[in-house]
Amino acid sequence: MGEFELLAKVRERLPPPGPRVRLGSGDDAAVTVPGDATATSVDALVEGVHFRREQCSLAQIGHKALATALSDLAAMGAEVGEAYVALGVPADLDEDGCLELLDGLAALAAETGAALAGGDVTRAPVLTLAVTVVGHAPSAEDFVTRADARAGDVLAVSGDLGAAGAGLLLLESQDRGRSPFVALSATKGERTALIARQLEPRPRLAAGRALAAAGATAMIDLSDGLGGDAGHLAAASAVRLEIDAAALPLAAGVAEVAAATGRDPIELAVSAGEDYELLAALPADRLEEARTAVEATGTTLTPIGVVSAGEGVEIRLPDGRLSKPAGFDQLGPEAGP
Amino acid sequence: MGEFELLAKVRERLPPPGPRVRLGSGDDAAVTVPGDATATSVDALVEGVHFRREQCSLAQIGHKALATALSDLAAMGAEVGEAYVALGVPADLDEDGCLELLDGLAALAAETGAALAGGDVTRAPVLTLAVTVVGHAPSAEDFVTRADARAGDVLAVSGDLGAAGAGLLLLESQDRGRSPFVALSATKGERTALIARQLEPRPRLAAGRALAAAGATAMIDLSDGLGGDAGHLAAASAVRLEIDAAALPLAAGVAEVAAATGRDPIELAVSAGEDYELLAALPADRLEEARTAVEATGTTLTPIGVVSAGEGVEIRLPDGRLSKPAGFDQLGPEAGP
Repeated sequence: MGEFELLAKVRERLPPPGPRVRLGSGDDAAVTVPGDATATSVDALVEGVHFRREQCSLAQIGHKALATALSDLAAMGAEVGEAYVALGVPADLDEDGCLELLDGLAALAAETGAALAGGDVTRAPVLTLAVTVVGHAPSAEDFVTRADARAGDVLAVSGDLGAAGAGLLLLESQDRGRSPFVALSATKGERTALIARQLEPRPRLAAGRALAAAGATAMIDLSDGLGGDAGHLAAASAVRLEIDAAALPLAAGVAEVAAATGRDPIELAVSAGEDYELLAALPADRLEEARTAVEATGTTLTPIGVVSAGEGVEIRLPDGRLSKPAGFDQLGPEAGP
Repeated sequence: MGEFELLAKVRERLPPPGPRVRLGSGDDAAVTVPGDATATSVDALVEGVHFRREQCSLAQIGHKALATALSDLAAMGAEVGEAYVALGVPADLDEDGCLELLDGLAALAAETGAALAGGDVTRAPVLTLAVTVVGHAPSAEDFVTRADARAGDVLAVSGDLGAAGAGLLLLESQDRGRSPFVALSATKGERTALIARQLEPRPRLAAGRALAAAGATAMIDLSDGLGGDAGHLAAASAVRLEIDAAALPLAAGVAEVAAATGRDPIELAVSAGEDYELLAALPADRLEEARTAVEATGTTLTPIGVVSAGEGVEIRLPDGRLSKPAGFDQLGPEAGP
């Protein structure tokens, strides 16, 4: 089965693409009529670098590859448009395996309204996915970049933090067949939820659009971890970000998993990465409006600090010490499963 | 050096992107204002599958990855727009190596007017490139798909055929340090040109636009080989393609390399693939106009057959026998270096 047949089989399970896609995969290129401004991002996941097949299902890998790409569109406040998938298939993955993987990707595409408009399938030594996504807005100025945070803005984060890092610790303790304290930390429901945050992140697309509409001046998705990503936003906006660690919204069970592994829960929230929440700067007088709008999308928005003149990121720890995020032990997505 | 620094270094060597790109790489996504219809294609090259590092330079790998993607835009008759690169870097490729590779890609981007608007860099077990390209046209109807060839059209091919397959045979004979007949077949200049066609294909972008303007009804680029790609066009258009093998424009030196390896030169022209020429169907009364327009872009256009009612591809060999392309020994790009 060639790539066209494979993608055609997957597309059969998707709702028909919207009016922008005039021609999907099967020709030399997909044809779209954007009619507006577009935001385009590409993200690659490589087996052994970003995931291990023994820790998750093929459907979860497909889901995560699209989710991490869509998270970049969420951070632009974009409406989801098209997705293009380059799939590298190793010798031990058969056609059914490819379909299971693409079904996971297609399920998230259907859930988010992404049109799977094209792709490429090739052999590769390990399972490799490169996903290009295109989002839309009426004009280029409607997208929220990282570059326009201003001194006096408040910093706020969607949802909760540390979940993906704690989920990774749980997965690794399962792999090793030891660390029963880790496996038994938190409740069963919490552990399941933490692992799901690691394996099946949900891009905060609706929250991103709500934040854009509520006047967010700068926004970034938390893939590397709050510390590192806040640093990207601070550098792009040429401002200083002052974050209050005590205000960070920790996901349920993170404190317990951190305790069982001898880690600081704030470390998981700041440095573990892959939470795929949104960090936004907002004019202080629009915080309540933004909070209401984000809550209407089914998640929370928590103020965690302020933007000031200067540069870099400063995190005030609960004991009053100041920390630079670089001082935290970096887990980061590339060190993950 | 992170992906942004790497891509920023490469972009320093590129001309500034056109007015469509409002924000290049370095944020969550690139922002463009297409203002028209777009054609998008993604192509992946994987070490050991599509190339071997010992047979070519890193710059040639970067060049070829972009060239094969742009060739799909050529086959749509598109104007070149943006390119996005997902680069998987193995442990034995250092920063200078990455820059050499991306410089090769950037040189072709500059030559063709492609804006390198974003990308992703990650670790990978072998060198991997997935390139997404976006092309433009005033309206969706201006793109030439594979699907509208009509009985009575003539079939024509740009440039010449068999060069990339002969170049591959020359490279392989060099690798083995034997087959002196192959290494000495053709003139030195011809051999150099054949190898360059394999390692540094040039996408026929200007010829593609000329063919679109001259009324091409269907078009495809020859990546898998004339036989296979003609089959794709025939299937998409629901027509039969009748090709006269004696009319095929063989590249200089192909006959000599074929003779030295005991192959039929027509086999190289039909099945070896990777010539990245364009196969187009045209109304018969516009052939001369198309030929003049393609010649103005610096290459040739050769009529090689006709479109008729029916299905499939039929190749009339010089001895009068008929052949189905499936009967040829498939080299195909995935069996290449």
